Amino acid sequence: MVSSPQSINTIKTFNDPIYGFITITDPLIFKLIEHPYFQRLRRITQLGLTNLVYGGANHSRFQHALGAMNLMHSAISVLRDKGIEVTPEEEQASKIAILLHDVGHGPFSHALENTIVQGVHHESISLMVFVKLNREFEGQLEMALDIYDGSHPKHFLHQLVSSQLDVDRLDYLKRDSFFTGVTEGVIGSERIIKMLTVVNGNLAVEAKGIYSLEKFLVARRLMYWQVYLHKTVLSAEYMLMNILIRAKEVFNEELSKACSPWLAAMLQQQEPTSDGDPAWLEQFMRLDDYDILYAIKIWQHAEDAVLAELCTRLIERQLLKTRVSDDPFSAEQLKEWREKYAQEQGVSKDMARYLIFTKAVKNKAYSAESENINILYKDGALKDISDAGNIFRFASLEAQETKHFLYYPNGISF
Amino acid sequence: MVSSPQSINTIKTFNDPIYGFITITDPLIFKLIEHPYFQRLRRITQLGLTNLVYGGANHSRFQHALGAMNLMHSAISVLRDKGIEVTPEEEQASKIAILLHDVGHGPFSHALENTIVQGVHHESISLMVFVKLNREFEGQLEMALDIYDGSHPKHFLHQLVSSQLDVDRLDYLKRDSFFTGVTEGVIGSERIIKMLTVVNGNLAVEAKGIYSLEKFLVARRLMYWQVYLHKTVLSAEYMLMNILIRAKEVFNEELSKACSPWLAAMLQQQEPTSDGDPAWLEQFMRLDDYDILYAIKIWQHAEDAVLAELCTRLIERQLLKTRVSDDPFSAEQLKEWREKYAQEQGVSKDMARYLIFTKAVKNKAYSAESENINILYKDGALKDISDAGNIFRFASLEAQETKHFLYYPNGISF
Amino acid sequence: MVSSPQSINTIKTFNDPIYGFITITDPLIFKLIEHPYFQRLRRITQLGLTNLVYGGANHSRFQHALGAMNLMHSAISVLRDKGIEVTPEEEQASKIAILLHDVGHGPFSHALENTIVQGVHHESISLMVFVKLNREFEGQLEMALDIYDGSHPKHFLHQLVSSQLDVDRLDYLKRDSFFTGVTEGVIGSERIIKMLTVVNGNLAVEAKGIYSLEKFLVARRLMYWQVYLHKTVLSAEYMLMNILIRAKEVFNEELSKACSPWLAAMLQQQEPTSDGDPAWLEQFMRLDDYDILYAIKIWQHAEDAVLAELCTRLIERQLLKTRVSDDPFSAEQLKEWREKYAQEQGVSKDMARYLIFTKAVKNKAYSAESENINILYKDGALKDISDAGNIFRFASLEAQETKHFLYYPNGISF
Amino acid sequence: MVSSPQSINTIKTFNDPIYGFITITDPLIFKLIEHPYFQRLRRITQLGLTNLVYGGANHSRFQHALGAMNLMHSAISVLRDKGIEVTPEEEQASKIAILLHDVGHGPFSHALENTIVQGVHHESISLMVFVKLNREFEGQLEMALDIYDGSHPKHFLHQLVSSQLDVDRLDYLKRDSFFTGVTEGVIGSERIIKMLTVVNGNLAVEAKGIYSLEKFLVARRLMYWQVYLHKTVLSAEYMLMNILIRAKEVFNEELSKACSPWLAAMLQQQEPTSDGDPAWLEQFMRLDDYDILYAIKIWQHAEDAVLAELCTRLIERQLLKTRVSDDPFSAEQLKEWREKYAQEQGVSKDMARYLIFTKAVKNKAYSAESENINILYKDGALKDISDAGNIFRFASLEAQETKHFLYYPNGISF
Repeated sequence: MVSSPQSINTIKTFNDPIYGFITITDPLIFKLIEHPYFQRLRRITQLGLTNLVYGGANHSRFQHALGAMNLMHSAISVLRDKGIEVTPEEEQASKIAILLHDVGHGPFSHALENTIVQGVHHESISLMVFVKLNREFEGQLEMALDIYDGSHPKHFLHQLVSSQLDVDRLDYLKRDSFFTGVTEGVIGSERIIKMLTVVNGNLAVEAKGIYSLEKFLVARRLMYWQVYLHKTVLSAEYMLMNILIRAKEVFNEELSKACSPWLAAMLQQQEPTSDGDPAWLEQFMRLDDYDILYAIKIWQHAEDAVLAELCTRLIERQLLKTRVSDDPFSAEQLKEWREKYAQEQGVSKDMARYLIFTKAVKNKAYSAESENINILYKDGALKDISDAGNIFRFASLEAQETKHFLYYPNGISF
Repeated sequence: MVSSPQSINTIKTFNDPIYGFITITDPLIFKLIEHPYFQRLRRITQLGLTNLVYGGANHSRFQHALGAMNLMHSAISVLRDKGIEVTPEEEQASKIAILLHDVGHGPFSHALENTIVQGVHHESISLMVFVKLNREFEGQLEMALDIYDGSHPKHFLHQLVSSQLDVDRLDYLKRDSFFTGVTEGVIGSERIIKMLTVVNGNLAVEAKGIYSLEKFLVARRLMYWQVYLHKTVLSAEYMLMNILIRAKEVFNEELSKACSPWLAAMLQQQEPTSDGDPAWLEQFMRLDDYDILYAIKIWQHAEDAVLAELCTRLIERQLLKTRVSDDPFSAEQLKEWREKYAQEQGVSKDMARYLIFTKAVKNKAYSAESENINILYKDGALKDISDAGNIFRFASLEAQETKHFLYYPNGISF
Repeated sequence: MVSSPQSINTIKTFNDPIYGFITITDPLIFKLIEHPYFQRLRRITQLGLTNLVYGGANHSRFQHALGAMNLMHSAISVLRDKGIEVTPEEEQASKIAILLHDVGHGPFSHALENTIVQGVHHESISLMVFVKLNREFEGQLEMALDIYDGSHPKHFLHQLVSSQLDVDRLDYLKRDSFFTGVTEGVIGSERIIKMLTVVNGNLAVEAKGIYSLEKFLVARRLMYWQVYLHKTVLSAEYMLMNILIRAKEVFNEELSKACSPWLAAMLQQQEPTSDGDPAWLEQFMRLDDYDILYAIKIWQHAEDAVLAELCTRLIERQLLKTRVSDDPFSAEQLKEWREKYAQEQGVSKDMARYLIFTKAVKNKAYSAESENINILYKDGALKDISDAGNIFRFASLEAQETKHFLYYPNGISF
Repeated sequence: MVSSPQSINTIKTFNDPIYGFITITDPLIFKLIEHPYFQRLRRITQLGLTNLVYGGANHSRFQHALGAMNLMHSAISVLRDKGIEVTPEEEQASKIAILLHDVGHGPFSHALENTIVQGVHHESISLMVFVKLNREFEGQLEMALDIYDGSHPKHFLHQLVSSQLDVDRLDYLKRDSFFTGVTEGVIGSERIIKMLTVVNGNLAVEAKGIYSLEKFLVARRLMYWQVYLHKTVLSAEYMLMNILIRAKEVFNEELSKACSPWLAAMLQQQEPTSDGDPAWLEQFMRLDDYDILYAIKIWQHAEDAVLAELCTRLIERQLLKTRVSDDPFSAEQLKEWREKYAQEQGVSKDMARYLIFTKAVKNKAYSAESENINILYKDGALKDISDAGNIFRFASLEAQETKHFLYYPNGISF
């Protein structure tokens, strides 16, 4: 009856401020976590530059991936308790699928994808990495890949990984609320998971969970406007984009000194990346927050005045101011402002162009079209949540809400 | 520089699991808290029989009143920081108004008001008690009374006490979520309070708080259907109402032995109470949870079979089952079920009538008509939240949602 | 693949503000929870009159018993993961043992056991009830009984139910901290449970858990002095004891009118109860907080001035003041104070005796003698925590700390 | 009565996951927060490499400094309520003192101070920066400086900034517990602050707070061994130190390419820094986590095998294993192990020396000698907590506890 030291050693426990302990007993999963590709996620913050507004939001994608896997564990337990069969292999594969769902995320993904990582989206990078790891692990990730890309016959497992009610969202909304301190974004992940069931192979939610779902959709909407699309967060993000665009525009020997070889390569790349280029992938997987922010720190002293200005502003948190409008700003107006600014401040047109700009920001809280949320009634009826007779104007939830932002430096007089 | 013992003693600190410490420095307020009328609230649970479903929900109205006063303190600080004048006298009066807003609540208010407390609503009782206390405190509650009944010129102070966004709701939603464990009901009271402002003497919310308000309205709706109007909670509450109705119906010497004099008086009262009857008020203010539940415990052994059955069921938590429907149940159907049950079980018609019944339950999440919620935009515009272009179908939020419940004992075959 | 309604129905979920959801899948356990003896615990507050000081502390023994069972579930999972065998029968029995460990608790146990419940301790009542339930459930609780009384061969299961590190304490310390708002009493139940193991059939804690244990012992000590033995909490408790003693002393027809038959019987009982008297047990199990507090409410108007005074003071929360001393107060001094008070206030000697009294309060944080806490080192060595070379003076932890309290009414001049 | 937009704009609110909102109304304090020196703290994690063990621990020194200032605000309010005079100027100065107390912290302070930052401690750097800022702000920080260095006549203000019970510790223990998820480290900062008072110009704690203090000392001890001195956290930290030592040892043109100019300068510096060298300070204040980790990422591919090995291990989290002992490891034994390892693995002696090493780790929970913790009794007596008759063996709390750690790579056979 003495506890065996071996058995203890096969259990790996991760501390998590949200779930307390996350325990891993599966050696394959533990090996994946130890892989440098997964360890890299420790150096990629979940919310990029959001910590310039919400100072607590320094959490990493590493911790989010573990958390989502933890919720997958709960979800599978709940479904099994309700008589839904999930084999041990499927459980392992589902956990791997969610663990690796973000493995292809680069640093500051949104900013990079619109600037220097051209022609390839983080989700397809994740898939490339997934395939590569499957080779490395000699096919052990085959079923996980099937679940990830939706080809596994039990579609609900894919929906747990990727749908409008997947464990990815259930973790990140909770986690982002926790670390930003925006307590209103807290969702009842545990309660929603308790309400999950499967109907005709598809994920559904028991009818009594409808108020939790309403709350989930509202919390998500709140997190979008209050955090993810917060005007000052976006100000920082757009400034980062402009830095990368400008760096690419004026790239030279001097700037390259502040770049890791892989970042330099990306800044010099002229053609969009063709899907699946292994050399490109190799380089991309070395990139993390440290490459980007290190370069920006050094470029504060760049010869190019525009780049130096943008970098100094970002590092010293002199972010661009924002004006918000329901209607677009006109191109003429923008041109006028820029000219006035260039003249008044005695700066170049380029400088004005990089410091004064407009953006249209869109948010869509729910879409009934793809991987929608189904409600199961006690009489066996199944309805999309947008038909379930509740308080939302789903027309407007589905309609994109668009806000227009004007960014400009302090001191400008309009 | 030595701390003076006297100054320490004038501060009274209450521990509260939600706000940590609630500190009182005003002697008048402290005397009101010490008054037997206010201490009585310790023996009245905030949520009545809800603890039969949410076992943690044993919190008292006493703690809620302190909590709401604590939020009043925060709200006034926030408004002052924004340049809204609130004098020390108004601060004291506002705190007293919210402290006493529930002082006239009886035990199991909803159940009592529809059965043995006839012709008088808990809010008018609170007013009567308020007036009585004002006399006792020699007019020191005058301004508090004005704020309470809306006659004080600074209308926003009344709105903090009683409106669709008052500190009463901001406390009880948070508190009820905390103690029930329905974490999704948690609202960002602190954030909403930060967003409060005053426009033309009326309370308003800064536009950037609109997502918090959406969340507040949804959380409130969720708490209604998930807690306050939970079918099993209502089952217990309706059983309690039936107990009181039956006890009144068959009241006699035997039953009176289990009653405090004041409860006995109420069960014997034939006429509706005329507003402001001081003798009646005197008796009412002696009533608390212990009178009611003690009687029910004893009545488990009453000679009247119907009363004994109802009481035993409530004490042993053999609650009536529920069937929910969007449409009303027909009177014929109900009659048929009752007859069948009486026949099959060999019980009286009365028994069937008290065990099988229907109820229509209504909920209205928001009303634009009275003390509505106004949003203040940066350009100075003011809109009702239902016009503020957000995601809710306010038509349906304002429309009463009605659900129909059929209650029946276990073992019945329909 | 459609979820079967039956399978859903066999799962019963309890909401708990501390653990979120507590799920029951075992029908026998569910039947025990539904039993009137267990439902009675809903009407017995865990901390008696503590809510007069910590207003949030209205939680019931019902919720605590469920919580402790929930921790038993976790503890057994942890032990199994470490290779310790616990059969399904043993799991069920251990859960039942902890579920029922408090079933014999009466209302305000400490007060009652020292006054009207003579000659029998709540633990032996629990055992009597346990045996009675075992008969009612036709022997299905046999193994649970063995675990409860320590006769089951796997002694560690008994230790989980009852030892210096049992799940009872791990739940109540956490729960009492939560509801009182004394956040410093919060213990890392989850972390301690993770560190549990079994050596030679006895419960032990892995050496790396030693800091958590230190914290646990200090938190427990803090909860004792700050909550359980708080001078004002004790003031209320001693007043309750005096009420019961006085009521017994002067018991008559008038007082009996406020008593349930079972409370009246106890107040009239002259002989100590002999263990195992079934009629006595039957009555005892009808008693709850409502019998006691109802009587006290009515006795505010008793003819006996002493009883009326004590009851009014308790109901209106005019508690006796306290003076604390390291040394005992002398009998002469006490006599003198009482005489002076009787004279000055023109009250009877009895009144003075009931309002002015002293108490010695003892606390012992740890005992190495019975069911002690063992630490397992990596090299296999096992040490009692008091020998494990840590920061505590265990001599003083084991020594009883004694404080002396003098209680007296406001207005007395010493 | 319309709220004035101006007054709103002068309030700056920071979101904090621990305290909710931290509000700043003082323009000078706000300007200090905006200063690049203070903004730099956003890029310095509070706990360095601890996030390799506690994945949530990515919080920055920026947020800690704000949090400590927030507690200073509470502490001053509490003291004022007790009649201790703190002028508005002293309040501002105290807040500035605590805000800037860590401004001279470099990245990975402990590692740097023992390697490349020679002859100067982070506290004296903070002082240098403080003086520099005071010049920049034209003497407005004069009183803050006096409080910081202990020369202000109200010594208790200095003690709030720096003593064994300062708001620095009260914040970081709470914050580090929160982000690591080691909930047992949570301390009752709020309650301790409520108990603060001042006696003869010195900070003291009211006697009833003694249990909270015991808990604070135990929680601190727990955080030390469980987090700050966790063997794996130290493994990462020692590897970082070895990387910096090795980089300095073999520094050349190749390595410098991965270095910012300021990091390169430090790695080339031969002499200890003389206190107050402004050029050195200028460079130091440019350094943050990004310089260090970027260099390490690049050095994974360094020509020097030892440096490359150490860097790769740190980035891929292949940390050195640990053996813990109460007694020191002998120098001969260490030499033997290194030789064996070099031979078996075919690596250089240098490699063995950098991968196999021992460390003595010391912790001292309390010192009665400097800025000790005084307890104020009701009778006015004042005692050091170590004399206050409580459960700790203060002899051992004051004695340094020393543990010996042996570090070695996986795969070695001893």
